[in-house]
Amino acid sequence: MDHSQSYHGNIENFIGFAQVPIGLAGPLLLHGSSGKSEHWIPMATTEGALVASYSRGIKACTVSGGITARTIASQVQRSPYFEFATLVEAITFGKWIKSLQPVINAGVSQASRFAKLVDLEVNQEGNALNVTFSYETGAAAGQNMVTLVTDQILKQILEQAPHQPTKYYIEGNMSGDKKANVKSLSKIRGRKVVAEVIIPNQIVKDVLKSSSESIVKFWQTGTLGGVQMGAVGNLGHVTNALTAIFIACGQDVACIAEAAVGTGRLEVKDKGDLYATLTLPGLIVGVVGGGTSLPTQKEALELIGCSTPDDVDKFAEICCAVALAGELSIGAAIAEQHFSTAHKTLGRKQ
Amino acid sequence: MDHSQSYHGNIENFIGFAQVPIGLAGPLLLHGSSGKSEHWIPMATTEGALVASYSRGIKACTVSGGITARTIASQVQRSPYFEFATLVEAITFGKWIKSLQPVINAGVSQASRFAKLVDLEVNQEGNALNVTFSYETGAAAGQNMVTLVTDQILKQILEQAPHQPTKYYIEGNMSGDKKANVKSLSKIRGRKVVAEVIIPNQIVKDVLKSSSESIVKFWQTGTLGGVQMGAVGNLGHVTNALTAIFIACGQDVACIAEAAVGTGRLEVKDKGDLYATLTLPGLIVGVVGGGTSLPTQKEALELIGCSTPDDVDKFAEICCAVALAGELSIGAAIAEQHFSTAHKTLGRKQ
Amino acid sequence: MDHSQSYHGNIENFIGFAQVPIGLAGPLLLHGSSGKSEHWIPMATTEGALVASYSRGIKACTVSGGITARTIASQVQRSPYFEFATLVEAITFGKWIKSLQPVINAGVSQASRFAKLVDLEVNQEGNALNVTFSYETGAAAGQNMVTLVTDQILKQILEQAPHQPTKYYIEGNMSGDKKANVKSLSKIRGRKVVAEVIIPNQIVKDVLKSSSESIVKFWQTGTLGGVQMGAVGNLGHVTNALTAIFIACGQDVACIAEAAVGTGRLEVKDKGDLYATLTLPGLIVGVVGGGTSLPTQKEALELIGCSTPDDVDKFAEICCAVALAGELSIGAAIAEQHFSTAHKTLGRKQ
Amino acid sequence: MDHSQSYHGNIENFIGFAQVPIGLAGPLLLHGSSGKSEHWIPMATTEGALVASYSRGIKACTVSGGITARTIASQVQRSPYFEFATLVEAITFGKWIKSLQPVINAGVSQASRFAKLVDLEVNQEGNALNVTFSYETGAAAGQNMVTLVTDQILKQILEQAPHQPTKYYIEGNMSGDKKANVKSLSKIRGRKVVAEVIIPNQIVKDVLKSSSESIVKFWQTGTLGGVQMGAVGNLGHVTNALTAIFIACGQDVACIAEAAVGTGRLEVKDKGDLYATLTLPGLIVGVVGGGTSLPTQKEALELIGCSTPDDVDKFAEICCAVALAGELSIGAAIAEQHFSTAHKTLGRKQ
Repeated sequence: MDHSQSYHGNIENFIGFAQVPIGLAGPLLLHGSSGKSEHWIPMATTEGALVASYSRGIKACTVSGGITARTIASQVQRSPYFEFATLVEAITFGKWIKSLQPVINAGVSQASRFAKLVDLEVNQEGNALNVTFSYETGAAAGQNMVTLVTDQILKQILEQAPHQPTKYYIEGNMSGDKKANVKSLSKIRGRKVVAEVIIPNQIVKDVLKSSSESIVKFWQTGTLGGVQMGAVGNLGHVTNALTAIFIACGQDVACIAEAAVGTGRLEVKDKGDLYATLTLPGLIVGVVGGGTSLPTQKEALELIGCSTPDDVDKFAEICCAVALAGELSIGAAIAEQHFSTAHKTLGRKQ
Repeated sequence: MDHSQSYHGNIENFIGFAQVPIGLAGPLLLHGSSGKSEHWIPMATTEGALVASYSRGIKACTVSGGITARTIASQVQRSPYFEFATLVEAITFGKWIKSLQPVINAGVSQASRFAKLVDLEVNQEGNALNVTFSYETGAAAGQNMVTLVTDQILKQILEQAPHQPTKYYIEGNMSGDKKANVKSLSKIRGRKVVAEVIIPNQIVKDVLKSSSESIVKFWQTGTLGGVQMGAVGNLGHVTNALTAIFIACGQDVACIAEAAVGTGRLEVKDKGDLYATLTLPGLIVGVVGGGTSLPTQKEALELIGCSTPDDVDKFAEICCAVALAGELSIGAAIAEQHFSTAHKTLGRKQ
Repeated sequence: MDHSQSYHGNIENFIGFAQVPIGLAGPLLLHGSSGKSEHWIPMATTEGALVASYSRGIKACTVSGGITARTIASQVQRSPYFEFATLVEAITFGKWIKSLQPVINAGVSQASRFAKLVDLEVNQEGNALNVTFSYETGAAAGQNMVTLVTDQILKQILEQAPHQPTKYYIEGNMSGDKKANVKSLSKIRGRKVVAEVIIPNQIVKDVLKSSSESIVKFWQTGTLGGVQMGAVGNLGHVTNALTAIFIACGQDVACIAEAAVGTGRLEVKDKGDLYATLTLPGLIVGVVGGGTSLPTQKEALELIGCSTPDDVDKFAEICCAVALAGELSIGAAIAEQHFSTAHKTLGRKQ
Repeated sequence: MDHSQSYHGNIENFIGFAQVPIGLAGPLLLHGSSGKSEHWIPMATTEGALVASYSRGIKACTVSGGITARTIASQVQRSPYFEFATLVEAITFGKWIKSLQPVINAGVSQASRFAKLVDLEVNQEGNALNVTFSYETGAAAGQNMVTLVTDQILKQILEQAPHQPTKYYIEGNMSGDKKANVKSLSKIRGRKVVAEVIIPNQIVKDVLKSSSESIVKFWQTGTLGGVQMGAVGNLGHVTNALTAIFIACGQDVACIAEAAVGTGRLEVKDKGDLYATLTLPGLIVGVVGGGTSLPTQKEALELIGCSTPDDVDKFAEICCAVALAGELSIGAAIAEQHFSTAHKTLGRKQ
């Protein structure tokens, strides 16, 4: 087989495959933007105990009636940088490009079938500007799409600018691309998804082997720990869920750096039930493009139930829901001193 | 084949493999802690243009005489949390556990052949303490090792404590485990590696198609962009290098969240040569344990030249060196407006 | 004198005055939004060497032709928090309140002669929302104004909401009020001001006793230091300038926590001239209200040339310009090893 | 009176005084490192309602039996920067200076009666090092002291270094001086103080007009708000307390930028009592030096009961205790919708 042919667009200097074992977790009962559905989750990982821990968390959520999740926004940014002779020129340019937003909108529609400009934010720093273009990118993760579209638009409009920049870069490192950062946390980077679940008191006991009070207290402890070390967001091990799903499903795994950022919140409700919610504002995911059409990746997307372009929001919601389930499982384990035991049993070669 | 047998310790509910294409970059000329060596780098990714971009950066570094890199420290943390009836009890406990450091040291040696306690840091918050145990973990990444050792030590000493904690968790979220955070950036998490290279003026032009001044100016722009968005550290796309190597070589890929953090610095030197350095303080890597003994992962470690326990520092240094080379390549591309062109040519299906 | 009478609105349980010595720095030559002007700067401080250091920096800037500065935006936030029974209700509420922006605009105009709504941002976290109201507040700092207006508006509209919140707070800690934070840095909090100056090579030598190359290298070093310790922004000692002016001029000095945040940038230009720019996005300042009408504070505002409501942008620009001048002075001192000498001579009692 | 004489060491170009009204809050019942004591707190501010709000919080704490507080550490940093020809030289230098710690200790004792070296931390970045010297500084805030001592020590030892730095600055912006940053939050900058109080259920109702559950829920909401905007720490309006005390008591008010950083935690205890704790790791305070000997500042220190060098820990504990009381007062006000009402009544001119 001529690999260099079939993988063109995905790899250069192809020499073979990394084979990462996939474990199956689930079923996850989801109430998402497409209604009620059940999902088996392929998780590619080499870390023992991980799939087992997620399975436990998913079970607790599913028997509790499932996780509700919604993709509430979708924005992928490209943030070109323009520097000028003086700060006054930069101010003038900033107002000019902001005033051009309708024109840019129209240009984007012509340049791409999928990209749609949803925001244009001008941030001045001295005699320079970062102009952040935020796009919806359809069913694709879209980072390349927004690069190409922004580049093309700027080539069309720049010569009419009131002042020509002395420096111009297609990216000035304010898009959030490929790194954990607070701006993306406080806004949107990729898909922003919220998920929530209520676990009845009895299920917390039976499945998670803990109590709502214990898990909540542990979670709040972790929140302050995170604050004191300058973490971006308030999470447990969300990266474990996302990485395993991203590898299995052909996502850009390097985006874990920016996607494993968000905010979890746990509360004890009436009768000791546990309310848990997770907000992930940086889910750079797609169901077309990138690695999604490679053989095992395509299979995994089919298995998880997200193989058509219409499934991209659902896919993001599953990612967030699985991550939420995993926060509960690890939270219960640490709150109840079971954490090291689990790793002793499952995480070691016999 | 009975997969559930052979992958025990790595996966539960095994259903098959994710196949991630590997491209080969290199050769990288490294002056590391083990001397001079040449390496071919297996990079597992589905993102087009990535291997090509790294190859270009590596070429520039290798023809310039190679990259110098050193692992300067190795510390993996576990940070248990103790809460007390009063803050005065917490102070007393903190002093007590700090005074016990020699005893704990001895206990660690008994509990593990590999773990070695190198620091014990007490951080009080109100009536609570995070006690951060920092360990060297030999050739393994070591997160499970430090959990088990810390748990065992605490079980031995806690009952002699001057006050019993009202709450105790094996981890209070101050170890840095699985998340980007400033504390790990300003200290060490896993292996801390520094790398540097000097690219002569002419090679910047010939291989990177740019000039030292251009790349440096772009880099400094990105630094301020990162500052303004609250990024953790000062990096370009280091996550791309680390993720691709981590997947290929059986590392815990979820650790990308914490590993893709660090500080890069570029300067123009005499005669217009380019000095570039990268510091990665959070390289959670190992050459034994985890996924390193799985078939393709083992092969990849052999290919990269890091298949024995003695190679762990070298492996960390290669990771850092490749990441540095990639910063130069992307920096040059964006500085010279070639970024979108490269993605148009290589990053798309034909 | 019945102090409790004359200071009503500024203090409770009045017992007398803190007397803080004022030193005069200047004259500062400013090219601001109101044109060219010269200013003497009253700086209230007890730290020796501080006024002398600022005087030196201001002299370098003034003899170089002055500092250009502009207030480019003005926004004061109040960020109420709403929690709902479910995340779906929160989504519906968020869309509803966003759609009401024109109605809210009109209500604001009725509620206050000065406040003007310029942005309404909805940030969802689980089943909750922070809705950030951003206002222009005229010549006043405006934190109380935005509290009262937001409270009044919400009382008018909340009962028509599609879902009633289960929790409602007038502030959910996303306005940036009284604390350093990245969101304010990446956006606006109070007045956002940019300032710049070009110091000819010869003046760098004669007045700052350094070279452009030296100061720039030091500045870039400090930038990376700041990144590694998780500083908010990229500054030297801007807090010194702002605090001294804020105390003298009747500002809310506690706002230093949020105002001493921003981004400085220094570059060597043609012929070795020094380009320096400072961006302060969080200048919570006013020339009416708060302490501005107290006797010495009023005098200080008159002295600095900002005693009428029209002067508020100019006042913000002076703050930023003085801060910029001080960054150059301290930068030169540290770059040239004069820092400890200056403190030995001026900062000690004889 | 020859002001330039009497204020030498505090100000240059002296022209008069800023008069800031002082309100008295208290009495505060404190259980500190010096035992049980009662304090009236002079707060210099021009913000109406502020003293009243603190008085209410202090009353709630005092009638509940008082606030317990302890200074648990004292460290002021100076963080010189050294750059070398190569990263290998930097490693060698770092090991060398670390090995010299006993020699440096001895040198510090000779250089200063007050300074005592308590830590020496080497942080390498590429071919450079920040070496952070942490000192106890006795009863003084100590920033100048640590500059002079570090400078003197380095002059003594540098010429014996294995490699001479190509760049050396007395401060490389990793000391935390004059800016909010995560490193100081996770460690110590100045005095680190913890304070706690238990407010019985009935007093929460009677004095704070709220319930423990309400205040705790509000506080946790604010914590997540802070996380989402990238705040440094987890505080309400601590800056208000510190700024008002700092101005009154002759502290370096510009240090508010770094001091108004910390972590608060509130919990509902048995019978609905309220546990509240505050940790401030960055209290740069002194009772000698700086502005502490100026007339009104000296009076204020006497009034608050901290006029001798032995009182410095107590002074820091009072600062933290007052700040904690204020967090409760504002928390209750916002939780119960009284916040805007208070500002309407007290914060406006009649």
